[in-house]
Amino acid sequence: MSEIKVVTNILKANDELNAVNRKELDEKGVYVINLMSSPGSGKTSILEKILSKLKADMKIAVIEGDLYTTMDAQRIEAKGVPVVQINTGGACHLDAYMIKDALTNLNLDGLELLIVENVGNLVCPAEFEIGEDMKVTVLSTTEGNDKPLKYPLAFEKAGVVILNKIDLIEYTNFDKGNFFDDVRSINDKVIFFETSCTKDLGFDELCLWIKNKVKNKQYNC
Amino acid sequence: MSEIKVVTNILKANDELNAVNRKELDEKGVYVINLMSSPGSGKTSILEKILSKLKADMKIAVIEGDLYTTMDAQRIEAKGVPVVQINTGGACHLDAYMIKDALTNLNLDGLELLIVENVGNLVCPAEFEIGEDMKVTVLSTTEGNDKPLKYPLAFEKAGVVILNKIDLIEYTNFDKGNFFDDVRSINDKVIFFETSCTKDLGFDELCLWIKNKVKNKQYNC
Repeated sequence: MSEIKVVTNILKANDELNAVNRKELDEKGVYVINLMSSPGSGKTSILEKILSKLKADMKIAVIEGDLYTTMDAQRIEAKGVPVVQINTGGACHLDAYMIKDALTNLNLDGLELLIVENVGNLVCPAEFEIGEDMKVTVLSTTEGNDKPLKYPLAFEKAGVVILNKIDLIEYTNFDKGNFFDDVRSINDKVIFFETSCTKDLGFDELCLWIKNKVKNKQYNC
Repeated sequence: MSEIKVVTNILKANDELNAVNRKELDEKGVYVINLMSSPGSGKTSILEKILSKLKADMKIAVIEGDLYTTMDAQRIEAKGVPVVQINTGGACHLDAYMIKDALTNLNLDGLELLIVENVGNLVCPAEFEIGEDMKVTVLSTTEGNDKPLKYPLAFEKAGVVILNKIDLIEYTNFDKGNFFDDVRSINDKVIFFETSCTKDLGFDELCLWIKNKVKNKQYNC
């Protein structure tokens, strides 16, 4: 059926452009994180925290994916970090072509860390590689611990899972033990971090992990 | 380009099946709600509340949309209400074809209210009519008040917007005034309800509204 053929072609074209992006970013020694979650899990707030803690230590840039607005990009710009906005015009995920295009608007020379904030959607973004070294999936405690089994791909493909809004867990019925078990049943290599942006919890550990990843990539390039 | 043509064909085919569903459901006098939100906004918990309050007064059925699991359908079944599970196999929204198929597994004779819980996704479900009388979009206070402008279609197409987890608003920076203003700037006909499932707030008003809608549809059929 033509529909299936087109979908296959789209994914194949994406894989090819993913490889192009990877090659360019590897040659420049840029470590790339693809940040994914539902709307409202706290991706932009986490990004603000990371930038505040790391921007003095390394050269960082951000690509912001959003359907229509530049609201998140404005928040990132306020941190004094180069940011490129991608408006998908209603499309539900970023793809490698969009990132390839966005990279032409960034100075990659000397860049050490690129964080891509994907469209808020726990389903579609996980299907598209965009040139990243690592997918990081965020879930907030207020979303419920049943989400990994309901939206498995975002957790299967993640190298890191951040459990955010940990300060609100006491007001919810979120079961951390079940959550960790369910994620590990899908992905036994995942690394967990627990964070709260309002209480500034967990970012020292997360940023240390990022610094090590960035350093390793620099050594290997 | 063939990709665009296929997308157009998919939407056209969906429109045709939406009309088929509408005709069948109108003839049977069934009022249909399409419940949409991000993952973890509380759709299933809201549904449980509605069923508890209304199932003695009217004949209700539920269609549960989910990527892979039957976790939500099991929660609904425990309420003693007929439920049909649609597993989309990874697809990010329900469409009219899936609903047409699900309707063959429901007894529509005498049915007064059908609630369809869509896949947890604030982007894609709003693009597909499935045979509903009304789209109801849920946002929880923990997701942030910036979401209507960032995900406008889900709010533009909604007849009702439910602001859920209202009991948690004091622990967030959610600005209700801005939220209402932003939704109204997209959709000036929308009706708002505020709910909390854990504190059992707002469901008398919501259920009264649903009862009136169901009654009106019965009169008009």
